[in-house]
Amino acid sequence: MLANELMKKLDEKKDRIIEIRRYLHEHPELSFHEEQTANYIADFYKNVPVDSVETNFGGERGIVVTIKGSKPGKTIAIRADFDALPIKEETGLPFASKNEGVMHACGHDGHTAYMLILAETIAEVKDQLKGTIRVIHQPAEETPPGGAIGMIKAGVLDGVDAILGIHVMSNMKTGHIYYRSGNTQTGRSYFKLLIQGKGGHGSSPHLANDAIVAGSAFVMNIQTIVSRRINPFDTASVTIGSFDGKGSFNVIKDAVTIEGDVRTMSPETREVVEREVHAFAEGLEKTYGVKATLEYKNDYPVLYNDPEVTEQVRQALEQASIPEVEAVLETRPQPPSEDFAYYLEKVPGCFFYVGAIPESGEAFPHHHPKFDINEKSLIISAKAMASVVASYCE
Amino acid sequence: MLANELMKKLDEKKDRIIEIRRYLHEHPELSFHEEQTANYIADFYKNVPVDSVETNFGGERGIVVTIKGSKPGKTIAIRADFDALPIKEETGLPFASKNEGVMHACGHDGHTAYMLILAETIAEVKDQLKGTIRVIHQPAEETPPGGAIGMIKAGVLDGVDAILGIHVMSNMKTGHIYYRSGNTQTGRSYFKLLIQGKGGHGSSPHLANDAIVAGSAFVMNIQTIVSRRINPFDTASVTIGSFDGKGSFNVIKDAVTIEGDVRTMSPETREVVEREVHAFAEGLEKTYGVKATLEYKNDYPVLYNDPEVTEQVRQALEQASIPEVEAVLETRPQPPSEDFAYYLEKVPGCFFYVGAIPESGEAFPHHHPKFDINEKSLIISAKAMASVVASYCE
Amino acid sequence: MLANELMKKLDEKKDRIIEIRRYLHEHPELSFHEEQTANYIADFYKNVPVDSVETNFGGERGIVVTIKGSKPGKTIAIRADFDALPIKEETGLPFASKNEGVMHACGHDGHTAYMLILAETIAEVKDQLKGTIRVIHQPAEETPPGGAIGMIKAGVLDGVDAILGIHVMSNMKTGHIYYRSGNTQTGRSYFKLLIQGKGGHGSSPHLANDAIVAGSAFVMNIQTIVSRRINPFDTASVTIGSFDGKGSFNVIKDAVTIEGDVRTMSPETREVVEREVHAFAEGLEKTYGVKATLEYKNDYPVLYNDPEVTEQVRQALEQASIPEVEAVLETRPQPPSEDFAYYLEKVPGCFFYVGAIPESGEAFPHHHPKFDINEKSLIISAKAMASVVASYCE
Amino acid sequence: MLANELMKKLDEKKDRIIEIRRYLHEHPELSFHEEQTANYIADFYKNVPVDSVETNFGGERGIVVTIKGSKPGKTIAIRADFDALPIKEETGLPFASKNEGVMHACGHDGHTAYMLILAETIAEVKDQLKGTIRVIHQPAEETPPGGAIGMIKAGVLDGVDAILGIHVMSNMKTGHIYYRSGNTQTGRSYFKLLIQGKGGHGSSPHLANDAIVAGSAFVMNIQTIVSRRINPFDTASVTIGSFDGKGSFNVIKDAVTIEGDVRTMSPETREVVEREVHAFAEGLEKTYGVKATLEYKNDYPVLYNDPEVTEQVRQALEQASIPEVEAVLETRPQPPSEDFAYYLEKVPGCFFYVGAIPESGEAFPHHHPKFDINEKSLIISAKAMASVVASYCE
Repeated sequence: MLANELMKKLDEKKDRIIEIRRYLHEHPELSFHEEQTANYIADFYKNVPVDSVETNFGGERGIVVTIKGSKPGKTIAIRADFDALPIKEETGLPFASKNEGVMHACGHDGHTAYMLILAETIAEVKDQLKGTIRVIHQPAEETPPGGAIGMIKAGVLDGVDAILGIHVMSNMKTGHIYYRSGNTQTGRSYFKLLIQGKGGHGSSPHLANDAIVAGSAFVMNIQTIVSRRINPFDTASVTIGSFDGKGSFNVIKDAVTIEGDVRTMSPETREVVEREVHAFAEGLEKTYGVKATLEYKNDYPVLYNDPEVTEQVRQALEQASIPEVEAVLETRPQPPSEDFAYYLEKVPGCFFYVGAIPESGEAFPHHHPKFDINEKSLIISAKAMASVVASYCE
Repeated sequence: MLANELMKKLDEKKDRIIEIRRYLHEHPELSFHEEQTANYIADFYKNVPVDSVETNFGGERGIVVTIKGSKPGKTIAIRADFDALPIKEETGLPFASKNEGVMHACGHDGHTAYMLILAETIAEVKDQLKGTIRVIHQPAEETPPGGAIGMIKAGVLDGVDAILGIHVMSNMKTGHIYYRSGNTQTGRSYFKLLIQGKGGHGSSPHLANDAIVAGSAFVMNIQTIVSRRINPFDTASVTIGSFDGKGSFNVIKDAVTIEGDVRTMSPETREVVEREVHAFAEGLEKTYGVKATLEYKNDYPVLYNDPEVTEQVRQALEQASIPEVEAVLETRPQPPSEDFAYYLEKVPGCFFYVGAIPESGEAFPHHHPKFDINEKSLIISAKAMASVVASYCE
Repeated sequence: MLANELMKKLDEKKDRIIEIRRYLHEHPELSFHEEQTANYIADFYKNVPVDSVETNFGGERGIVVTIKGSKPGKTIAIRADFDALPIKEETGLPFASKNEGVMHACGHDGHTAYMLILAETIAEVKDQLKGTIRVIHQPAEETPPGGAIGMIKAGVLDGVDAILGIHVMSNMKTGHIYYRSGNTQTGRSYFKLLIQGKGGHGSSPHLANDAIVAGSAFVMNIQTIVSRRINPFDTASVTIGSFDGKGSFNVIKDAVTIEGDVRTMSPETREVVEREVHAFAEGLEKTYGVKATLEYKNDYPVLYNDPEVTEQVRQALEQASIPEVEAVLETRPQPPSEDFAYYLEKVPGCFFYVGAIPESGEAFPHHHPKFDINEKSLIISAKAMASVVASYCE
Repeated sequence: MLANELMKKLDEKKDRIIEIRRYLHEHPELSFHEEQTANYIADFYKNVPVDSVETNFGGERGIVVTIKGSKPGKTIAIRADFDALPIKEETGLPFASKNEGVMHACGHDGHTAYMLILAETIAEVKDQLKGTIRVIHQPAEETPPGGAIGMIKAGVLDGVDAILGIHVMSNMKTGHIYYRSGNTQTGRSYFKLLIQGKGGHGSSPHLANDAIVAGSAFVMNIQTIVSRRINPFDTASVTIGSFDGKGSFNVIKDAVTIEGDVRTMSPETREVVEREVHAFAEGLEKTYGVKATLEYKNDYPVLYNDPEVTEQVRQALEQASIPEVEAVLETRPQPPSEDFAYYLEKVPGCFFYVGAIPESGEAFPHHHPKFDINEKSLIISAKAMASVVASYCE
């Protein structure tokens, strides 16, 4: 059976996955600037019997690898992202980042490591395969607009029947795999509000128009979007992450810039928040006589796992009986946003989660300077994805 | 000398002033409903040798009494108000209000008492008088639009050269008289804001539009009018005295009514506040999607004492050497508003203050259920006004 | 089969259910004052072969009826509530309320009508019954603390194996029945905050302490409980339904009373909100120098349907194939709170919903002056409850 | 007469004043770093027949020059400040700042220029002088704690009978001199509030504690200090000049720093504001569960001109009949704060104003990059101060 064959081979390559992951961890690159990483990936495929390797796919450094089975069948896409974050690593690991201020603090090094070895392994057994596997190495997941959009526009999903992705999770138990059907990760929006008042001297407020007061009123007033405009059974958060109003203590500030982040779990709620943020900005102009210039962008959509594909993933994982996997469980919705959601807007698919709490038991959240994963999660990821792929291609 | 003559006569009538004041105190009537009081005043003049008594002057119960001197001269108006307040008296005085819930808690009983006796006394010596004295008994000072407006429209100031008025003050030392030139008492504005949202159930805020939240935002936002829109060296206060939002705890309130009071010391500031309250109401509509219906009325203007008249008042008072008066002093601006200000918009004049801290030393503020005055302030008022009138009419 | 027998008999009594419902609708009584209604219910049972009728059960007007089967078995409680609301009816129905200002605007008239006829019918076939049926006629569901608490304390659940209840729903399709397992209706808390400042005159804010400003700050600040303290994937709403701050426009308000309503879907969230409301009240004292006296009461808990009982209800309903029922469907969580939740804290059970959108198609929400139900929902309720009872007692 | 003698001599030195002013303008230095300027001043006195020149007076670069008259008399201190501001000059003047980013944008170059020539001139006629003139060249007026404090501690006022100072004013008409008795310039306080919450991710607000929300609530709440805690007839302003909350849009901000500026016109009001800012910071901790660390410093006090000295200044100026002076007028209180106020806390004195609107008529405010003065104001300042000094020393 294909699944077993793949898993046996993967077991032999365990150490290579870890080796690759550590190399990538040592050499992280920021979203939209992953030159070395893309070269590394392309180099990897030089001696692998895949059918094609397309680089710079979609205007950025995306790489698409095609593996054709010997018999006709479905086309399944499997995706791993490979960008890192602007974070100064504090793990103290022997293979910690050598690129000061940049860090693989979200596990994309692991995603790429398992995917490379899995692709190599699938290529080795492609004569037993029905259909086609399209491996998507995607850059720039961390930074909107994200790398997925460009690759989709360039045709990466053409002819694809289903798409699959995995995220290793530092806060989920190693040995567990989690799935969820339907709306699974939040959609995200971003806004930036420039409030232009009029500067002046602290002793003469009547001659100025205090932008800090107007900005503070905005922050307080928009709390009512979540508290009063959203169905309590629905999900929404609105965060002002930046209030840039630094100035001299005795000078009335002429302008402040506010930046916000919105998370929602349905397109309807997304629209309500967008409409309300606009209303509050307009109201601010009327109320405080300032000029309020609002830029509002909806970026990553709600991540929607197709119920049928998710059910097939669940069954494949359970039937695979992967020795390292104790349980396959349903998870609650996940708060972060993911640009994998763009693929799922186009083709059915499933994005699922592989537990990776470190052996020490001390788990730092994703994007934390001390973030780390249990490297066992990588062979689990490889075997889990292999099982699902096999269930489609046998 | 006329002043001396008047004072000697007044000294003999001291007890009658107190008697009248106590009678009026026992029978207070609300603004615009002073029937008995007006009858009492009219009756008083029946046997007094004045030249005319006009009742129901100006559409309300105003009474205008004319005393013509034997020689030509200026026309001087002197005004006393006679309405009371909707307050339940708690003084425990033997002559406390017999009209439950209505009280002379601002001293208008005293104003009327001294004025009646003073008018009688002037009438007795009118052959020594140059010019004309017009005695204005004004109703409805306490309640906008006030009684002055109607009397002015009906011609009470026609031909008047100067107008004078006194207020007894429970918080100023008995034996002191106070004056101020220029802007002396605040102007006042009133507004009423009906905020119409949409009712609903506490468990479904997204289907309603919470008028209490919008109202609270309005209250917080308008604090910035005084804190940021007014010159710190200028004077303004904006008070929300009523927030009518009583409802059922678990029903989202559909509408609230807010009523506010504005005090300013210059027409420019008055305009700034009016403009800003309108802006905040419009901003509320935009921000919270409510309907905000604003009614805004400027009522009593800033009370402006003419510098020349005030100087003449000061000199007359100092030269009079009234035995009961220890000092004639300049005062700070006074916070309340007074419809005497309307007269001063038309003709030059002076409104000044007679100290009336009770003998007990315990002074309750005007409009307090325990408000009382030192009755010595009444003979002082009569003599002070007599001195000033004499200085004009000799 | 018992279920069929019951349904056949019920079919013959359809009109009587409607008759009773209309009578009760015409004679509504407020929570804790349901004298006539309780007498009516007690009278009904006079000629019904039940085993016992206990009145004034639990300190209020609760009535508990026991029907013993011929064979041993489980004890199943079925509950209907019978109080009405302080609402002025505007339906224009021929059987509209004759008790001005009181209205059955939540369907409890229907609950009681179907339950009386169902109890009579069960009593008629009690020789075919295994176990015991306890019929709970509960007063005072609408008003905390509610009628359930007292009846539980008085032992209404002693020996009960499972409890069942139905609510007719004016916003759910007639012909549909809805169920949900687990947390199903929100828990509710109530709070009352007395803010004591210091009164004063609008022209002298510095001598007063404005309670309306402090109250408005409280309203704005607590919006952040829902917006910042609650997991966006969780459910909570906090409503200020009453802001009692009516006063005179130019008097600084000395005190205001605020009343609030809290809805949550888990005990943890309930605690977070309670803790935060206390914190905001204490913060208000520090910030504004007022005295803030907070009364906080958790009343109806989260309504939790036992998964096993709910599954049995679902199966019984599906197997019953009630002709009037098109579908038995899962529902989303429901926003209102219900004191049936107290029973479910003590014994496993299920509270489920019978669609009752009026035939006109125009559905007014519960507690609306024009609220009405489709009377077909009553025979459906009777048959549905009969089916479930039969599945337990055969 | 001494005044005439001084003025005649000053007329001959007009051009030298301007020359010195332009040199200083070209070489501005920041507060507490006025090395070159202090050297320049000390050098100036090398050939001037003064009695002593003390440098580095008071720990900083203060210079105190003593000129003793031939006869005994009063000791009069006259003060000029000599520091500049961190402003990039945009005047385009031929003698614009050569010290990039530093500018004499408040006229202290002019103060020093007229004072040097005036001191030289007084020294030339010291045989005609009664008493002693102490010339205070003060550094660091612009930056709290200011240069005055140190010089006072070092004894600069020992034996001084009265102190005098002049400020040239770009917004007052050239040819006018202004004075005011009593409280004349505002006192100033500074505060810095560090609000420490807890960082987190925008999608999980319940795990964080949003410092930007707490900061905004603080800004809105403290507006009520001016609007509700201060007598409307009094003066106070509270400005948040800096809200340092820049961050990443989707990260909940862990901490923000707020800096504020307070202006008051009486020690009582100063205390009210200080007490209230503390209360609001404490309230913030309770309300929002943040840590609020407040640093509060009262710096320059209210500037109080002694009524007697001010009257003598007024009379001296009027009697001097300086040809360049059209009018000597009373001014309104002035909004800025001045560390000359420290001297006036110790000895009676007067700080007065010399109009200096540029000839172009286009007047930029003090501290503006295009600030300039009419250089005629310098000879006026010299003559005005000469007149006042003469009135004391003749």
